[in-house]
Amino acid sequence: MPFPTPTPADKFTFGLWTVGWQARDPFGDATRPPLDPVESVHRLAELGAYGVTFHDDDLIPFGADADERAKQITRFKEALEATGMKVPMATTNTFTHPVFKDGAFTSNDRDIRRYAIRKIMRNLDLAAELGAETYVFWGGREGAEIDAAKNVGDALSRYKEGLDLLCQYVIDQGYGLRFAIEPKPNEPRGDILLPTIGHALAFINELEHSEMVGLNPEVGHEQMAGLNFVHGVAQALWHGKLFHIDLNGQHGPKFDQDLVFGHGDLLSAFFLVDLLESEGYDGPRHFDYKPMRTEDIDGVWASAAANMRTYILLREKAAAFRADPRVQAALEASRVDGTLVPTLAHGETYHDLVADVDATFDVEAAGARGYSYAQLDQLAVEHLLGTA
Amino acid sequence: MPFPTPTPADKFTFGLWTVGWQARDPFGDATRPPLDPVESVHRLAELGAYGVTFHDDDLIPFGADADERAKQITRFKEALEATGMKVPMATTNTFTHPVFKDGAFTSNDRDIRRYAIRKIMRNLDLAAELGAETYVFWGGREGAEIDAAKNVGDALSRYKEGLDLLCQYVIDQGYGLRFAIEPKPNEPRGDILLPTIGHALAFINELEHSEMVGLNPEVGHEQMAGLNFVHGVAQALWHGKLFHIDLNGQHGPKFDQDLVFGHGDLLSAFFLVDLLESEGYDGPRHFDYKPMRTEDIDGVWASAAANMRTYILLREKAAAFRADPRVQAALEASRVDGTLVPTLAHGETYHDLVADVDATFDVEAAGARGYSYAQLDQLAVEHLLGTA
Amino acid sequence: MPFPTPTPADKFTFGLWTVGWQARDPFGDATRPPLDPVESVHRLAELGAYGVTFHDDDLIPFGADADERAKQITRFKEALEATGMKVPMATTNTFTHPVFKDGAFTSNDRDIRRYAIRKIMRNLDLAAELGAETYVFWGGREGAEIDAAKNVGDALSRYKEGLDLLCQYVIDQGYGLRFAIEPKPNEPRGDILLPTIGHALAFINELEHSEMVGLNPEVGHEQMAGLNFVHGVAQALWHGKLFHIDLNGQHGPKFDQDLVFGHGDLLSAFFLVDLLESEGYDGPRHFDYKPMRTEDIDGVWASAAANMRTYILLREKAAAFRADPRVQAALEASRVDGTLVPTLAHGETYHDLVADVDATFDVEAAGARGYSYAQLDQLAVEHLLGTA
Amino acid sequence: MPFPTPTPADKFTFGLWTVGWQARDPFGDATRPPLDPVESVHRLAELGAYGVTFHDDDLIPFGADADERAKQITRFKEALEATGMKVPMATTNTFTHPVFKDGAFTSNDRDIRRYAIRKIMRNLDLAAELGAETYVFWGGREGAEIDAAKNVGDALSRYKEGLDLLCQYVIDQGYGLRFAIEPKPNEPRGDILLPTIGHALAFINELEHSEMVGLNPEVGHEQMAGLNFVHGVAQALWHGKLFHIDLNGQHGPKFDQDLVFGHGDLLSAFFLVDLLESEGYDGPRHFDYKPMRTEDIDGVWASAAANMRTYILLREKAAAFRADPRVQAALEASRVDGTLVPTLAHGETYHDLVADVDATFDVEAAGARGYSYAQLDQLAVEHLLGTA
Repeated sequence: MPFPTPTPADKFTFGLWTVGWQARDPFGDATRPPLDPVESVHRLAELGAYGVTFHDDDLIPFGADADERAKQITRFKEALEATGMKVPMATTNTFTHPVFKDGAFTSNDRDIRRYAIRKIMRNLDLAAELGAETYVFWGGREGAEIDAAKNVGDALSRYKEGLDLLCQYVIDQGYGLRFAIEPKPNEPRGDILLPTIGHALAFINELEHSEMVGLNPEVGHEQMAGLNFVHGVAQALWHGKLFHIDLNGQHGPKFDQDLVFGHGDLLSAFFLVDLLESEGYDGPRHFDYKPMRTEDIDGVWASAAANMRTYILLREKAAAFRADPRVQAALEASRVDGTLVPTLAHGETYHDLVADVDATFDVEAAGARGYSYAQLDQLAVEHLLGTA
Repeated sequence: MPFPTPTPADKFTFGLWTVGWQARDPFGDATRPPLDPVESVHRLAELGAYGVTFHDDDLIPFGADADERAKQITRFKEALEATGMKVPMATTNTFTHPVFKDGAFTSNDRDIRRYAIRKIMRNLDLAAELGAETYVFWGGREGAEIDAAKNVGDALSRYKEGLDLLCQYVIDQGYGLRFAIEPKPNEPRGDILLPTIGHALAFINELEHSEMVGLNPEVGHEQMAGLNFVHGVAQALWHGKLFHIDLNGQHGPKFDQDLVFGHGDLLSAFFLVDLLESEGYDGPRHFDYKPMRTEDIDGVWASAAANMRTYILLREKAAAFRADPRVQAALEASRVDGTLVPTLAHGETYHDLVADVDATFDVEAAGARGYSYAQLDQLAVEHLLGTA
Repeated sequence: MPFPTPTPADKFTFGLWTVGWQARDPFGDATRPPLDPVESVHRLAELGAYGVTFHDDDLIPFGADADERAKQITRFKEALEATGMKVPMATTNTFTHPVFKDGAFTSNDRDIRRYAIRKIMRNLDLAAELGAETYVFWGGREGAEIDAAKNVGDALSRYKEGLDLLCQYVIDQGYGLRFAIEPKPNEPRGDILLPTIGHALAFINELEHSEMVGLNPEVGHEQMAGLNFVHGVAQALWHGKLFHIDLNGQHGPKFDQDLVFGHGDLLSAFFLVDLLESEGYDGPRHFDYKPMRTEDIDGVWASAAANMRTYILLREKAAAFRADPRVQAALEASRVDGTLVPTLAHGETYHDLVADVDATFDVEAAGARGYSYAQLDQLAVEHLLGTA
Repeated sequence: MPFPTPTPADKFTFGLWTVGWQARDPFGDATRPPLDPVESVHRLAELGAYGVTFHDDDLIPFGADADERAKQITRFKEALEATGMKVPMATTNTFTHPVFKDGAFTSNDRDIRRYAIRKIMRNLDLAAELGAETYVFWGGREGAEIDAAKNVGDALSRYKEGLDLLCQYVIDQGYGLRFAIEPKPNEPRGDILLPTIGHALAFINELEHSEMVGLNPEVGHEQMAGLNFVHGVAQALWHGKLFHIDLNGQHGPKFDQDLVFGHGDLLSAFFLVDLLESEGYDGPRHFDYKPMRTEDIDGVWASAAANMRTYILLREKAAAFRADPRVQAALEASRVDGTLVPTLAHGETYHDLVADVDATFDVEAAGARGYSYAQLDQLAVEHLLGTA
C-alpha cells in the first residue's frame, strides 16, 4: 500500500501541550527543553496537520503582563498565517496552579470558583479571536480524594452554574463557539466528577443551554475505567453530542498514558476509526497524546507523525473492510442490520405484539440460532492485519 | 453499642435470587439445593426484612403452564400475607435462556426483541398485582464481545423503543410502577450497553416518558469500573433519579463478586449510607448479593443477616459522625459547605465578577490555603472504627 | 499474502473443554449441546491441529464406573490413532464438583486434600499412558473470598506438600511428565493463591523437585491483573520455566473472557509471538479459549481455526519485522542490544567502575540522549498492519 | 477506647520524601514549600515516630559538592542525635534525573547502568554510616512503554549483575545491610520489571547472595494490580523474605495514590496488621504515603499522625479479634487451622493415601459441608467497626 501523506483535508490537529510536553512526571524532572509554540505550528504544518489547539497558559505564560500577552499572541498569529494552520479548539488551564488544587468550577472556595470563571472568559475571547469553533472543558481538578471532602450534589450545581454563565457569555458576545466537556475518571484527583462519557452526557441535559454543550471524549480516559471507547463514542453520537474527540492510546486501568493513537488497543482503534468515518464525523481528529519521556525532539516529531499515519492506515483499512463482499456477507449472517428495523411494525400495538408472539414464537428454535460473530471478528482482525 | 435488630421500618429487601442462589459459577456446579421462595419469604421475615423482590423465573419456572403459574403465585401470596412481607420491586429474567444470548431489547433478531417485551409485559402485570412500585431493567445481555457485532446507535434506538412501549403499557394499565435501569459495565457480555450510572442517566433523557424512568445503581457494578459509587449515587440524586438501590460488596475491577454489603470497600459503604440517610432516600435498601459458594444454608441466612447488621451499624456511625462537634469543626475548616453558595451573587453579572476578581483576588494567597482534608478523613476513619 | 494452512508442524493444540464448552455462564444456561471428544479430535485434526489436551472429567464423566471409563478411553485412543493427533498435555478438574469449593491442595479439610491428590494420581496414569509430556495444575479453587478464611502460609505448605508428593509419584512411576503451574489472580475465587507468573515462579523454588516444575502462563490471566504478558513470559523464559503456554484474548481487568488469540490486545499478541519464536520456544501453542456464547457449532469451528490463523499471521509478521533493515536500524538507534553487554567489563572491579564513572561520565549529556522508541514502535505497528 | 500515643517502641518510620513531598503531580505545580529534613526529623520525633528513611537526593541535593554534602549530613546527624530518631532504611533516587529515563540497572545504555551503580554505592556508605539495616531498591524506571524497547531477559541479567555486585560490595565493606526489592507494576513506566511481590521473589532466587535480598512490598503497589496485599505479604513471609514493608492506601487499579494507611481498603488494612502482628514481624512499620496535594503543612503533620493512629487502632482491634472466644469458635467452625496438619500422615505413603481415600471418602457428603465463612467475615467486620 503506497503510504499517503497527511494533508489538512484530514483535519488532524494537535494540542500545543502534546508535542510541547517537557516530560515531567510524578517521579521525574523534565527531559526535554521548552518548545516554542511558533516552532510547533511550523513543524506540525510541515507534517501535514490541519491545526493546533491550546490552553491559555500554553501560549501565554501564567501571570504574564499585557505586553507579554500581546507579543505572544502576535507571534502565534503570524505562525498560523504563515502556515495556514487553524485553531479549531481551545481550552483553559484550570489545573496547574496551586490555586486550583481543590477544583475550579467546584472548589469549596467561592473566590477561587470566581477566579476560574474569569480566567476562562479571558481565554474565550482569545479563542473566538483565533477562530476556534469548540471550547473544551477538562475538569481535572473537579473532584476529591476522600468522600467527606466534597458535597457532590452542590458541586454539580456550581459546575452547572459556571457553564451556564459561560454559555451566556458566549451567546452575548456572539462567539461562534460550542462547548465540549472532556470526562476522565481519575488522575490527578482520586475521583473526578463527570468521570465518563455517560456522566457528562447526563450532566449536559441539566444545563440552560444544553444545545451548545457536547463532549470531547478521549480514548485513554474511558479505557482507564475499562470501558469500551467505541461504545461510548457511539452513544455520544446517538445523543448528537460528539462535538470533538481526543485520540491517543492506553493500556487499560492504570495511570493516564497518553500513548500515540493505536499504540494501545489497536483493534479498538480500528473500530473507532470505522465508526467515525462511517458516521460522517467531520470535526477535527485531535491527538491528545504525550511523546514518551524517553524521547528527544526527534522522537517528538516522529511520534506526532505516527499518530497521523496510524489514523490514515486505519481509515483505509476500515473502508476496505466495509467494501469487502465477504464482510458484507458476514454482517448479514450476523444480522447486524437487524437493529435498524423497529421492533413494533408500523401501526402495530402491544396487543398485536403479544398476540403475534404467543401465536408464532418458538423460543427453543430461536435460542438455537448462532450469530456468526466468530467469523465476523476474524475477518476484522485479518483486514486490520492487511491479510484479508 | 447494644445491637439493634432489623425491623421492617428499616426497609431492607432481598431478591429471591440472592439467598436462593445455588452457587453455580463459571467453573463449578451448584453447591446448594434449590430454595423454595416461600421458605425465603418466611426466613427473611424472621430476620427482620421488609420485603422481597423477584425475577419472573425466580417464582415461576421458565415455561411453566398456567396451572403451575397460578399455583406458585398463590403460594407466594400466602407467604407474603402470613409474614406481612412486601414486594416493592420486581424485574424480568431476560438473560438466562439461550434465546437472550445476543440481548433482549437489543438483540439483532427482531422476533427475540418482541418475545422479550412480551415476557416483560406478563411480569409487569404480576408486579402490579403484588403491589410493586419499582420495576427494574438490568440489561445484562444487551451488549457485545466484539465491536463489529452490534450497531450501538441502532441498538440504543431499539432499547428506547422497548422502554417507551413498556412505559406506555404501564400508563395505559394504570399501574403505579416506575422503571429503574440497572447499569453494569460487563459480565456476562464483554461490554454491556449503558455501562455506568452516567450512561443510563443520559439514555433516560431520550425516553418518551423519562419522568417515570430512573436508576437502580449497584455498588459492585460501578466499582467493577473503578468508579466511586458514592459520587455516582450523588449524581443520580442530583438528577432526581435514584429510584432504587442495590447494596453489596466488591473488590474493584474483576468479576462481579456480589459480596455482603460492606465486605468490600468498607469506607465507601460508610459514606454511601451517610449519603442515603442524609439525603433522605426513602426507598428500599435492597441487598443484591450472593452468599459465597463455600456456604451451606446456615451461611446463607447468616450472610443475609450480615447485610442488614452492617447497614444499621453504618447508619448509626454516620449519624454519630454528623453529630460530632469535632466533625462539624473539621467540615468548616475544609469549607465543605462552600459549594452551597452560588458563585455569582444575587443580581451580579459576569461583568461584575470580572471587575471584582481583577480588583481583589490574590491568586498566590489563595493557592497557599490548605483544605484540612487529612484531618477530616481521619475523623471519618476513627468514627467508622468506633474510636472517635 | 497467500494464507498458509495450519499443519501439525505448527504444534497447535486445543483443550477438549474449549471447543466443547457448552457456554454456561454465571447468568445463563448452556447454548450448545455437549460435544463428543471423539468428534473434537477429528474436527481439530481436519483443521490442522497437532493435538488435544484434557481434564480427566472432559473425557470420562465424573463418577463413571470402570467400564464406562475404559470405554471412553478406548474411543478416544482410536480417534487419536485415526487422526495422528497427540496429547501433549493433560490436567485435572479440581474445581467443578462442590467438594472442591474451598480448594483441592489447600482446602481447609484434610480429607478433601487427600481426595484431590488421589484424583490427580489417577489422571497422571492416564496422561502418561497417552504420551503427555506436560501435566498442568490450575488451582482455580485454591484461594479465598475473605482474608480470615485461609492461613495463606499454611495453605502454601500444603500446596507444596501436594506437589512434592505428586512429583515423587511421577518419578517413581518413571513417567516422562513435567509439571506446569497455571497462575490466575481471581475467578472463580475472590483471590487465588499464586496469582501471577511471578508468584508461581517463586513458589516453585521451594519445591523438592523444582527442576521438574515450571509454568503454563495464560494470556488473559496476567492481563486480568493489568500485567504485561510479554514481560511475564520473558521472565519465565529467563528462569528456564516456560514449560507450556495458554494462548487466548482478554480486554484487561474484568471477568475471564477467554477470547480467540489476538482478539484482545493485538499488539501484545504480536510481541508475544515474536518472543516465543525468537526465543525458540518449541512446546505446543495451546489455545485455551472459549467460543463465544452467541455461537453455534459452526462458530465453534470457525473460532478454533481463527486462533491458528492469527498465530500464523503474527508469526510471519514477526519474522518480517525482525528481517527488515529499517527495524534493525531502529533497534540500533534505540540501543536495544545494549543490555546484552555486561555492565562490568571482564576483570573489572567495582573500584575500577567507580574510578571510571567519576572520571568520565557526563550525567547531563547522558540525560539528553533520546531512545528513538517512538520510531521503533511505529515500525512495529505498521508491520503488524501489513503496511511497513 | 483511650487512644494510645505512638512511641518509638511501635517502630513507626517515615520517608523524608513523604512529609517532604511538595505535591507536584503530572498536571500541577508544587503546592507546598520545601521542608528541611532536619525539621521533619524533629516533628516526626515529637509525633512519636521511631525513625526516618531517605533517598540520597532527599538529604543531599543532586549534584551537591563535597562541602555541601558534608554539611547536610552533619545537620541530619545532629537532628537524629537530638531526637533519638533512627535511620533503619535508606535507598537511592535512580528515577528523578533524566539520565535514568530508560532505567538504572537496566538502561539500554551501559554507561548509565554504571553511573547508577556508582550512585548507589555512595549512598550505601552513608546508609551504613547512619546505622541502616535495610537498603531498598525500587526500580521505578526499570521497564518500558513499548514491547520492542527492552529485551526483558537481558535486562533481568543486568538487574541481577547490578545487585550481585552491590551485595558483594556490602559484604566486602562489612556493612550490616540487607537489601529489599520494592515491586511495582507500572508508573512512571508503562510496565515495570519485577511488577509484583511474586516476580521479585522469583528474581531474588537467581541472585548470587539471595540470602541477603528480600522484599519491601507496598500496599498500594500490589493493589494497583488488583492483587490481595495480605496474601502477597503472607507469601513473602512464607519464603522468609519480608525484610521491610511500605504502608499506605490505594483505591484499586489507577495511578499510585499513596494515601494514608487505612484510607483505602480498610478491611484489608485490618487483616494486614493482623498478619504482621500475629506472625511476629519485627521490622519497621514504614509509611510510604503522600500528604494530599490539597493540604498545607498542618495537613502534612495531621496525615503523618493519622498513619500511626490507624495502625495502632488496627493492632488493638486485631488483638481483640483473635482473643474473642466467638472468633475462635468461628475459626474452628471454618476449620481454618485445617491447613496446619500435613495432608499425608507421618510415615504414610501415597499408596496408603489412595487406599484410604478409595475406601472411606464420601465425595457427596464432603461436598455438602459448609465453611461458615459468612459468619467469620461478619465477626471481623464488626470487630473492625468496634461493635463486636
